[in-house]
Amino acid sequence: MATADAPRADVERVNHVLETLLNRGEVPARLREAMRYAVLGGGKRIRPRLAYATGRLVGASPAALDAPAAAVELLHAYSLVHDDLPAMDDDALRRGRPTAHVCYGEATAILVGDALQALAFEALAGGADAAIAVRQVALLAEAAGAGGMVGGQALDMEGETRRFSLAEVERMHRGKTGALIRAAVMMAAATGSLAEEEGTALDRFGGQIGLAFQIRDDVLDATRSTAALGKPHGADARRGKSTYVSLLGVDAARQMAAERLQAALGALAVFGDRARELAALARCLATRSF
Amino acid sequence: MATADAPRADVERVNHVLETLLNRGEVPARLREAMRYAVLGGGKRIRPRLAYATGRLVGASPAALDAPAAAVELLHAYSLVHDDLPAMDDDALRRGRPTAHVCYGEATAILVGDALQALAFEALAGGADAAIAVRQVALLAEAAGAGGMVGGQALDMEGETRRFSLAEVERMHRGKTGALIRAAVMMAAATGSLAEEEGTALDRFGGQIGLAFQIRDDVLDATRSTAALGKPHGADARRGKSTYVSLLGVDAARQMAAERLQAALGALAVFGDRARELAALARCLATRSF
Repeated sequence: MATADAPRADVERVNHVLETLLNRGEVPARLREAMRYAVLGGGKRIRPRLAYATGRLVGASPAALDAPAAAVELLHAYSLVHDDLPAMDDDALRRGRPTAHVCYGEATAILVGDALQALAFEALAGGADAAIAVRQVALLAEAAGAGGMVGGQALDMEGETRRFSLAEVERMHRGKTGALIRAAVMMAAATGSLAEEEGTALDRFGGQIGLAFQIRDDVLDATRSTAALGKPHGADARRGKSTYVSLLGVDAARQMAAERLQAALGALAVFGDRARELAALARCLATRSF
Repeated sequence: MATADAPRADVERVNHVLETLLNRGEVPARLREAMRYAVLGGGKRIRPRLAYATGRLVGASPAALDAPAAAVELLHAYSLVHDDLPAMDDDALRRGRPTAHVCYGEATAILVGDALQALAFEALAGGADAAIAVRQVALLAEAAGAGGMVGGQALDMEGETRRFSLAEVERMHRGKTGALIRAAVMMAAATGSLAEEEGTALDRFGGQIGLAFQIRDDVLDATRSTAALGKPHGADARRGKSTYVSLLGVDAARQMAAERLQAALGALAVFGDRARELAALARCLATRSF
């Protein structure tokens, strides 16, 4: 069960796992430094926190959750490095610091992302139970690939050239952000034993909270300052990107995030009071101001 | 055992597996097209051929080899797309055709590589035996990452700025080319049951043939025409890259490739005549003129 300090403990725990993974093996010094910069420089660790909280709900040991928690964060960190590249979003600021390609050059930034993706799968393959590990590899690979995160990013680039419908924006976000958030939940769920209806409920929870999170992200991009975001404010609008805010306006987008949150919380009903911690985390993600 | 037509049958077989993998899922049309362009446009399929030949040596069924054979080729194809990017080697020609970023733009080329890496792990996770699949994921992830292929590419970039020693060139190539070739052999070896000394022998074989292959590549880059190579001739020298040829000259590099080949063949001695097919393939790779 959750304790009052679970979020901080989870963040410290995954940071320690990430440190260990990033110090492993024989790696060219500059590449390793750039990988550490991309992964260890802050970040809210939302996906690992979802993994640990889901794992506690399904009765998994903390040790069994380290690999999926770290893997999903490595995947996320790689996606930020590649998304920020000059050929993609061309962002110079991330988590309040210069982006990886600004510090280390474009070639190294490409390699950092490539290496972090490989490291995510290496982490999963180190799991103690082969059947669980291979299920997690399948979940993460599917979420990360052309039908998931990369596909969403491809749609995002396309969205700079024409106006999207709301359905297209949702499809983009299901891939770009939702797939990895759902994978964080489902990889953790794979470590426990669940009734079929419980697995379905977590799947639905992961999908809905992923969308709520992204809609909230669109709202924050439109309403918060660069200093508060740690990345450029209003970047979506400047690029002419179709977002929930550009299509619906801020108020209706807020309303939609609230509806997605309610759907996510509704999915958790099957667990009763046991899902208290995961529900609280979901509320944080859908209403965050950071 | 090998048949006279094994190489062609292997190439056709892996091409079919790759087709199937690339047609799967809901993928944005342009991204899918670019992924198909990067993977299906020719290529010698050397790594899959090594996987199938090794698998036959260890008594694996062809079906059990499809996933590792396709996965290693997907990894290889992704690495070519990213290596060719303007920020990396900035190559416009590959396999006799325009490179992916020339045809589809830089952003899509980055995404193609990212998606192909994910697809490689998705393919492995689909294997029938979880223990074997997770071992293959570990082998491929380690070979692909910062301690393997990506690390080698990072050294390669560094090698454009200063002259390498022979030991540094070898370290670079062990990562950049050798790691994946070794992984092709070892992932296939994981599908069979082997005595410990046989596993060690295949590991040694994979390492030596990887180096022989790369030295041959350096020799071809220096001696063959652009038309014969399907990529720009003499590119290494123009970039001031340290290669076996730049450090040793063509003749000594040829000699070194021959020595690596002999070491690779020597490692196969433990299998006796059963390794005839794999030995023949190794000879092809170390003496090829394509």
